[in-house]
Amino acid sequence: MKKKIAVIGLGSMGLGMAQSLVRAGFEVSGYDTAPERAESLCRLGGKAAETPALAATGATLVVVVVVNATQTEDALFGNDGVVSALDRGGVVVSCATMAPEAARALAARTEAEGRSYIDAPMSGGAARAADGELTFLASGPDAAFEIARPALDAMAGRICELGPEPGTAAAFKMINQLLAGVHIAAACEAVAFAARQKLDLEKVYEVITSAAGNSWMFENRVPHILAGDYTPLSAVNIFVKDLGIVQDVARSSAFPVPLAAAALQMFAAASGMGMGGDDDSSVARIYAVLSGVTLPAAS
Amino acid sequence: MKKKIAVIGLGSMGLGMAQSLVRAGFEVSGYDTAPERAESLCRLGGKAAETPALAATGATLVVVVVVNATQTEDALFGNDGVVSALDRGGVVVSCATMAPEAARALAARTEAEGRSYIDAPMSGGAARAADGELTFLASGPDAAFEIARPALDAMAGRICELGPEPGTAAAFKMINQLLAGVHIAAACEAVAFAARQKLDLEKVYEVITSAAGNSWMFENRVPHILAGDYTPLSAVNIFVKDLGIVQDVARSSAFPVPLAAAALQMFAAASGMGMGGDDDSSVARIYAVLSGVTLPAAS
Repeated sequence: MKKKIAVIGLGSMGLGMAQSLVRAGFEVSGYDTAPERAESLCRLGGKAAETPALAATGATLVVVVVVNATQTEDALFGNDGVVSALDRGGVVVSCATMAPEAARALAARTEAEGRSYIDAPMSGGAARAADGELTFLASGPDAAFEIARPALDAMAGRICELGPEPGTAAAFKMINQLLAGVHIAAACEAVAFAARQKLDLEKVYEVITSAAGNSWMFENRVPHILAGDYTPLSAVNIFVKDLGIVQDVARSSAFPVPLAAAALQMFAAASGMGMGGDDDSSVARIYAVLSGVTLPAAS
Repeated sequence: MKKKIAVIGLGSMGLGMAQSLVRAGFEVSGYDTAPERAESLCRLGGKAAETPALAATGATLVVVVVVNATQTEDALFGNDGVVSALDRGGVVVSCATMAPEAARALAARTEAEGRSYIDAPMSGGAARAADGELTFLASGPDAAFEIARPALDAMAGRICELGPEPGTAAAFKMINQLLAGVHIAAACEAVAFAARQKLDLEKVYEVITSAAGNSWMFENRVPHILAGDYTPLSAVNIFVKDLGIVQDVARSSAFPVPLAAAALQMFAAASGMGMGGDDDSSVARIYAVLSGVTLPAAS
């Protein structure tokens, strides 16, 4: 008999992850607040459940792929939440990026109900989710990893196991998002400033990507600006949220983050100008608006 | 007979570049305001000149490796400056990072005196200078490159030729320094914040360098912080200067650079706390001071 896994949240990431689990031979039962997404899962070989609890009934593992800590809490402990429905001794794999303290609190409540919790924020985008090639930062009890590892292996190209404490992976993810967000904003600032200096932007890309000014994000996002294509691969609002987490945690620990703060303002401006759902490289368009610079248009 | 080249400025970069030129078979005549540096050149097979003009007399090429536009102007046009001493039709290779407008102005004055000017900011550090493995961003007239190319090849591992206008290379360098400076400050912010979260910093380095938060600077500078070793490979004051150029140019073109501005404040603070001559990763120590975090000590 196939092992049953529940997937809560069937957006572009959750649906791809569910697809990877189906391909690996699991019985996948999915739930999303939008019923049409659950139908997509059926077409991929999974089953649609009417509530999170029904998705989790008879499962030893539930993968929660929602946007933030509040939605995760609701999926776990709200009406028809998964934790009490999940097999005793079962494991929650929680994938939303959230503050470490929030992950620790959700883990403690899950353990109090006799299940365990793996803090497992992931990255990689929808295409990698569908290919089973995501990167997971993961922390949680060894016994929980024993149970979850086959499913994680089906969804991941790479799993960084970061120790037994939920919250550790969330903290690593927060550090990564601080850097990623600052690097995107810096890339946008630099490219728009180069445009202001009338430089050949294709040449700027070529020079910088092989120079000390390079970053993973510069290399990955600047082509969107050069193509004038702001179709979202990762949306502006993701960084409004994730740099918001950085701000909240930094402030609560009296730690100054001037770079992250400056970057957050630019993502907030992009969201405020109506680009929240557009590609995060849209921050370049804010610099363009603010300076009168013209960036490449879509061809 | 060996072709004569003058090198003005024999700091760690200029001396290494002179050494690469000697090794390539040029007759190298050097000048520095500090006479003991010129003596170092003699030990490496070059000759010491008593003035910039004497270094340039009989040369078709002069390489100017000083700190900024003011020092470059002084070397070119001050008392005993090189331009009028250099062979007619000779070429100035100007290596300081400066505002594009400053490079254009120096080039125009050089051309008015019948010599030509290559705007050639470089990067790579002292070790690469001595090995002839620097990276040059270079712009100037084709005819000047014809004359300068054998010397540039002797000093460079890579030359990005960016067109016929002096000032273009300066603008590219400025864009690179904006990114490099922001990335160093962001790396320091992230690592100190990770320390505040009590994360294993070696593990943070391992995870981030293979994640989307990586940058060339994160990868290169964070090991200094992990080793607690702030021996300068590139000093804080370099970025006080170079991000200062970014600020000046941005302000004069009414272009907002909030990320570069935030980064500059952190380098300024490091300089203000007496770390101006220390490694630029010292910005991490400012975050540590401001937040009460303890970073690794030198072993």
